[in-house]
Amino acid sequence: MYPAGVRYAYFGKIRMLSINDIHTPALVIDLTVAQRNISRMADYARQHNLNLRPHSKTHKSLAMARRQLDAGAAGLAVAKVSEAHVMIRVCNDLMLAYPIVDHARAAAIADLAGRKSQMVRVCVDSLLAVDVLASAGQAGGSVIGILVDLDVGFHRTGVPTPQAALELAQAVDRAKGVRLDGLFCYPGNVSGQAARQTASALAAVQDALSQTLVLWEQHGLRAQIVSGGSTPTALQSHQIPALTEFRPGTYIYNDRNCLSHGCCLPEDCAATLVCTVISNAVAGKVVIDAGSKSLSSDRLAGGDERSGFGLIVDYPQARIVRLSEEHGEVDVSQCDTAPALGQRLRVIPNHICPCVNLQNTAWMLMPDGTIESLPVDARGATW
Amino acid sequence: MYPAGVRYAYFGKIRMLSINDIHTPALVIDLTVAQRNISRMADYARQHNLNLRPHSKTHKSLAMARRQLDAGAAGLAVAKVSEAHVMIRVCNDLMLAYPIVDHARAAAIADLAGRKSQMVRVCVDSLLAVDVLASAGQAGGSVIGILVDLDVGFHRTGVPTPQAALELAQAVDRAKGVRLDGLFCYPGNVSGQAARQTASALAAVQDALSQTLVLWEQHGLRAQIVSGGSTPTALQSHQIPALTEFRPGTYIYNDRNCLSHGCCLPEDCAATLVCTVISNAVAGKVVIDAGSKSLSSDRLAGGDERSGFGLIVDYPQARIVRLSEEHGEVDVSQCDTAPALGQRLRVIPNHICPCVNLQNTAWMLMPDGTIESLPVDARGATW
Repeated sequence: MYPAGVRYAYFGKIRMLSINDIHTPALVIDLTVAQRNISRMADYARQHNLNLRPHSKTHKSLAMARRQLDAGAAGLAVAKVSEAHVMIRVCNDLMLAYPIVDHARAAAIADLAGRKSQMVRVCVDSLLAVDVLASAGQAGGSVIGILVDLDVGFHRTGVPTPQAALELAQAVDRAKGVRLDGLFCYPGNVSGQAARQTASALAAVQDALSQTLVLWEQHGLRAQIVSGGSTPTALQSHQIPALTEFRPGTYIYNDRNCLSHGCCLPEDCAATLVCTVISNAVAGKVVIDAGSKSLSSDRLAGGDERSGFGLIVDYPQARIVRLSEEHGEVDVSQCDTAPALGQRLRVIPNHICPCVNLQNTAWMLMPDGTIESLPVDARGATW
Repeated sequence: MYPAGVRYAYFGKIRMLSINDIHTPALVIDLTVAQRNISRMADYARQHNLNLRPHSKTHKSLAMARRQLDAGAAGLAVAKVSEAHVMIRVCNDLMLAYPIVDHARAAAIADLAGRKSQMVRVCVDSLLAVDVLASAGQAGGSVIGILVDLDVGFHRTGVPTPQAALELAQAVDRAKGVRLDGLFCYPGNVSGQAARQTASALAAVQDALSQTLVLWEQHGLRAQIVSGGSTPTALQSHQIPALTEFRPGTYIYNDRNCLSHGCCLPEDCAATLVCTVISNAVAGKVVIDAGSKSLSSDRLAGGDERSGFGLIVDYPQARIVRLSEEHGEVDVSQCDTAPALGQRLRVIPNHICPCVNLQNTAWMLMPDGTIESLPVDARGATW
């Protein structure tokens, strides 16, 4: 049942799996690289006296979360309640980097917040969210930590001005069942720009945060936490002095977007999708067994359809030009030698986070060359 | 733990779930609509004396596959071996609409083909595929049915000419462990064109198939099956007289692509993603709790980023302009009244197939207004 050309690694009498044993498409995480990425980010945080709160949305894995916490992470960020339900198994300091405005989610969060020695915080950008969380906190006999979400330029969520952030903070301060813990932002607009623009965007984020903090202080309110985020800006977090913590996610594995942003090197990409060439019948093209149901149909950030759907490691001149659900069509007309039918190829996905979420299981390439299964524990946890 | 405004439906002493009980984002299938879609396609097939072989990639559901078979489908198409492993539980006539060139998949297919009263066929477009499948069939003591994949213009897989199809068919005919069953094509290029171009594209498909069949006959080879496919061209299958069967997938649920192609009406869309407005802090915008991890980041076919990431049923003027993994940003600047914070919205996804595959479970809206869980049995089955 194993593919041809399998390499076996024997350890005593137990045959361990190697990378050629596993079925394709298979998401393989090189543990050596991932562990190095984890350590580097933890070192940066220590060096700048910042708390690191990795976002678990990227790996959705308890094993990887444990490694981040062991390396010194102060806690974890999660996007959704169902992700919190998974990550609470290894982490007693969770932040829901996502607003909650409905009673079902709020009740579930109040339940988590009420557990012994468990810290749970939620970011909010509306009075409705404050009301719903306060009601749930009171009903559940617990207190939910609140961060006020300030829009610093990405224009996705967050109140628009320091004044609006003050009013929301005051509402939190007045309410029972919730506790004002600080300020939250997502500086997603800062990345992918030229150096001078990046510097001015970072300064604008700092201005918005510090103006808000001054205003809060004038009204007797204090932010214990000021939380920023995103992998592209992670190593510039110290250039936003207001921040006490940052929430990068992708850095643990990196991807083609990170390469394209210049925030990692090829050797920092821990995740590749191993796939097989299943057709070369159409001239100038080969087809791999990975489509949008394995890679996701995410374009390269800032790119268009022509930028393709992933980077084929050993054939940089090949271009994944079209994805069906299970087919990846690769233009090999610019390659000196085209990949052969049946050959295995490694693809660095454009965006690793949705790619991880598509896998029933991922695989970990261990330092000794063997392969272990890596459950995607919070896969599909969108509630 | 249930959201505010829940409607309860009581049947005897059992409280049944209604659509407001379920957490969002939630993929809801209106069973009345899906069943009507199933029946209509079955009626069309009967009327034109064609075999209907629904592609299970869309629903990935045993319950829905059973309904298709009960309505008269001759068998099912699947994309991958792992999907076959699921669908074989309800179907004894499976076609793998996907080439196999590796020993692991071939051995698994030979195993399935060797089961009592089970028909398994595979389409191929290379000699390697024939060799690998023949070896596996011989090793497993079974015979695998083979269809030769002819490229009729989509240029994804398939041999390019009738002559190449003849040579491949002769190789199948010579080999042991495999059996030549017919011809296969995917006319994905025919859809989305003006009527006159569609007619000429259909004629070109018929020409390519009939030329191949004539050539086969001259060499003593016969195609018991000639298999076409795709929802956009499904109801034109009788205009390709060479076809004995067709393999539409999406028709069971339909989606925004189908609407845009004109191959369904709004009332034929059985699947909506129910989501909640979680932020309206940024002017001119609301944010829903469904991003690329719920809707998929598939663009509208033939559209670009501006065409948005789904159709909000009750707010047709709203546009889902940007997806993060868990955020859907909706431009509501053209709406008379914007959706309110906390409001539930129903979204028709651009492409229902990857959307289904992202769900841990879907939900079925029953004719009596209650809701039942609908497992996505073959979710993530990419091997």
